[in-house]
Amino acid sequence: MAFGWIDEQAELRRRAGLVRTLRPRPADAPLLDLAGNDYLGLAHHPEVVEGAARAARTWGAGSTGSRLVTGTTGLHAELERELAVFCGFEAALVFSSGYTANLAAVTALAPHGTLLVCDAGNHASLIDGCRLARAERQIVGHRDPEAARKALRAHEGPALVVSDTVFSVDGDAAPLGELASVCREFGAGLLVDDAHGLGVLGDGGRGAGHAAGLAGADDVVVTATLSKSLGSQGGVVLGPARVIDHLVNAARTFIFDTGLAPASVGAALAALRLLRREPERAARARRVAAELHARLTAAGHEAVRPDAAVVSVRAPSPEEAVRWAADCRAAQVAVGCFRPPSVPDGISRLRLTARADLSGEQIERAVRVIGETRP
Amino acid sequence: MAFGWIDEQAELRRRAGLVRTLRPRPADAPLLDLAGNDYLGLAHHPEVVEGAARAARTWGAGSTGSRLVTGTTGLHAELERELAVFCGFEAALVFSSGYTANLAAVTALAPHGTLLVCDAGNHASLIDGCRLARAERQIVGHRDPEAARKALRAHEGPALVVSDTVFSVDGDAAPLGELASVCREFGAGLLVDDAHGLGVLGDGGRGAGHAAGLAGADDVVVTATLSKSLGSQGGVVLGPARVIDHLVNAARTFIFDTGLAPASVGAALAALRLLRREPERAARARRVAAELHARLTAAGHEAVRPDAAVVSVRAPSPEEAVRWAADCRAAQVAVGCFRPPSVPDGISRLRLTARADLSGEQIERAVRVIGETRP
Repeated sequence: MAFGWIDEQAELRRRAGLVRTLRPRPADAPLLDLAGNDYLGLAHHPEVVEGAARAARTWGAGSTGSRLVTGTTGLHAELERELAVFCGFEAALVFSSGYTANLAAVTALAPHGTLLVCDAGNHASLIDGCRLARAERQIVGHRDPEAARKALRAHEGPALVVSDTVFSVDGDAAPLGELASVCREFGAGLLVDDAHGLGVLGDGGRGAGHAAGLAGADDVVVTATLSKSLGSQGGVVLGPARVIDHLVNAARTFIFDTGLAPASVGAALAALRLLRREPERAARARRVAAELHARLTAAGHEAVRPDAAVVSVRAPSPEEAVRWAADCRAAQVAVGCFRPPSVPDGISRLRLTARADLSGEQIERAVRVIGETRP
Repeated sequence: MAFGWIDEQAELRRRAGLVRTLRPRPADAPLLDLAGNDYLGLAHHPEVVEGAARAARTWGAGSTGSRLVTGTTGLHAELERELAVFCGFEAALVFSSGYTANLAAVTALAPHGTLLVCDAGNHASLIDGCRLARAERQIVGHRDPEAARKALRAHEGPALVVSDTVFSVDGDAAPLGELASVCREFGAGLLVDDAHGLGVLGDGGRGAGHAAGLAGADDVVVTATLSKSLGSQGGVVLGPARVIDHLVNAARTFIFDTGLAPASVGAALAALRLLRREPERAARARRVAAELHARLTAAGHEAVRPDAAVVSVRAPSPEEAVRWAADCRAAQVAVGCFRPPSVPDGISRLRLTARADLSGEQIERAVRVIGETRP
C-alpha cells in the first residue's frame, strides 16, 4: 500500500518517545514565553503590528507573484535598503523565509567545482543548501577554524566556508574573525547565518558580522531572518551588490517563490526602525541572557554561557527533557526542548530564549519554575 | 578573489540578454495586471486585507518560532481544518511558502529506497525536493502516464509519482486520473502540486485533486499555495492524517522553519471563506482564461488552450519576448515573460494570468495591446 511504511516509522517514534505534536497556542496565553525567538519582544509591539496592518492595506495581503514578476513592491525595496544600511552592507535581498534565503545563498554561491566547508553544527537550512548545491562538500568540526583551514588547503579552485554566527541549539558563537582570516588566506568566500545574531549582537543589534568588523567586506555574505529579533517573517541575504545581483539571477528559491507578503515586509521595517530608535534593546537582551545563565548556574543547573540570547540547559535524557519542558509549561513557563534527532550531539536540553522585555520578576519566576520541575 | 567568478557569469548573462532585474511596483500602479497569480482578485479584497490586519493585531506580527515550538496558533489550526474540509482531505499542514511545502512533502515521503518519478515539466520546488530526497530519481516525459508506468514497473519497493496539476509555464494540466490509475497499479503514492489549480479548478475552486475525484484518497497527497488564488502567502500539504503526522515529525522545512506569519494565515482564511461564499469566482477565472485564449488565437497569436487560468503565448525569441513584455508594460499592461533558463523546452513566451475580476473592457484592452506590440 502507498505510504504503508509511514505507520512503521510512526510506531518506532512512539516507542522511542520521540513523537512531535502541534500544540496551538491561544491568543491570550498566560504563559511566560522563553521558547520563541522574539528576542526583542517586538512581535506584539503596537508599531510593528500596525506596520503589518498598514502594509496589507496599502499593498495587498499577498505580493501576488515571484519577486521578478509582480512580487516586488516599493516597500520590499525600502526594507532592503534600510537593512543593508543598518547592517553595513552594500545590498540586501529579502526572501519569504530564512530557510529559503539560506538555500538560495548556499546553492547560488557554490556552483560546480566549488568546495563547501560546513560547520557540523550548522542549521538545517544551511545543511540542506549544501546538499542541494552542485559543489563538493566537507563537514568540519564545530567552531574549528583549523579544520576549515585544512579543508581549504587541500582544495584547488573556489571555496565557500559556511557557518551559523550563533548556533541555535546551544547559543554558542562561531569564531567569525578567525574564520574570515582563514578564508582570506585561501581566497575563499565566507557565508554566515546571523539568524540569532541580528538584533542581539553588535552595535545596536547590527549583528555578528558587524560586531566582527566584517560588514561590507567583499568576501563576506550574511544571511538572517526577519522572524526573530524583527518579530515578523522572512529572510534576508546581505552582501556586495554583485553577489545580490547574482542571487536575483541564479537563486531558484528567489526566482521561483512568491515574494514575502507586504504585511511581513511592513512589520520587519517597523521593527527595524524601532530598533534604530531604541538601540539599547539589543544590549538588554544580552543582559537578560547573562542573568538567566548566572542564576541557573548558581542553582546548580548545567547551562552553557550564552554568546547571544539563547541559554541552553542540559537534561539527563530525551524523555526527562520532554517531561521537564511539559512540567514547566504546566507551571505557565514555556521553554524549548531540543532532543534527537534535532541536536547534533545527541544531548537533550531545554532551550531558553532571553527577551529584552523580560522583567526581573519574570526572570526570577522562570528560574524558580525550572528548578522546581528539575528531573 | 572570493566570488570572482560571479563577474564572469554576469558578463555571460549580459551578452546573452538574460539579465534579470527587480522592478518594484508602486502601491497605486495604473497597470492592468496579467502577470501576477492573484487568480481570483482577492489580494486586495477588503475582507482579505482586514483578515491580515486583524490577525496581526490578535496574534502578533510574527509567529515567533517553529510550528513545533511557539509558531502554531489557534488561527493556524483553524486554517488547516477549513482547508482540509474545503478540499476534501482528512488533514492539512500549513507552511511558510509553497516552496518549503513542496520540499517537505517530497523529501519526507520519499525516504531511502523509494523511487521518485518526476514529470520533466515540474516546478523548481518539486525538482529541488527530488534532488534533496535520499530516494532514487527518474525524470519522465511531460504529461506521460505511460512513461511513469514504465518507471514504476522497473522498480521494487515504495515509489512516489510527483507532478504539478497545472504546469506554471504553459498552464496545461496533468492527466491526474491516469496518473492515479498507474500509481494504484503498482501501489505507488501520488503527490501533486495544485498551486495553479486551487481556487480555479474543481467544484467552487476545490482544486484539481477534487475535480479528478482524488480528494481524500489514502494514496494521494496534494500541495498548494496560499499565495495565488487565496491572495496571501504560504503553502499547504493536504492528505491522510497519518501522512500529515509524518510531515510534522520528519519534514525539515516544517520543523526548522519559523511558522507562517499570523497576518498571512488570517488573509488566507478570509479568502477561503470568501471563496466558499462566492464559489462562482472559480468558474469566472476559467471563463476569462478561455476568452483571452479565444481572442488571442483569433488575432493570430500562437496560444496554448488553457486548462486553468494561465494563458501562454509563444514569442519568436528570448530577446523579442523581453521586448514584447516591456512594450506591453509601457502600454500599462503587465504580462509575464518566461524564457531560458526558466522554461523546460527553451521556448520563450508571454504568460498571461486570467483573473476572475477582469472586466470585458480590460480583456479587450489586454488583447489589443498584446497585438499592437507583437514582434
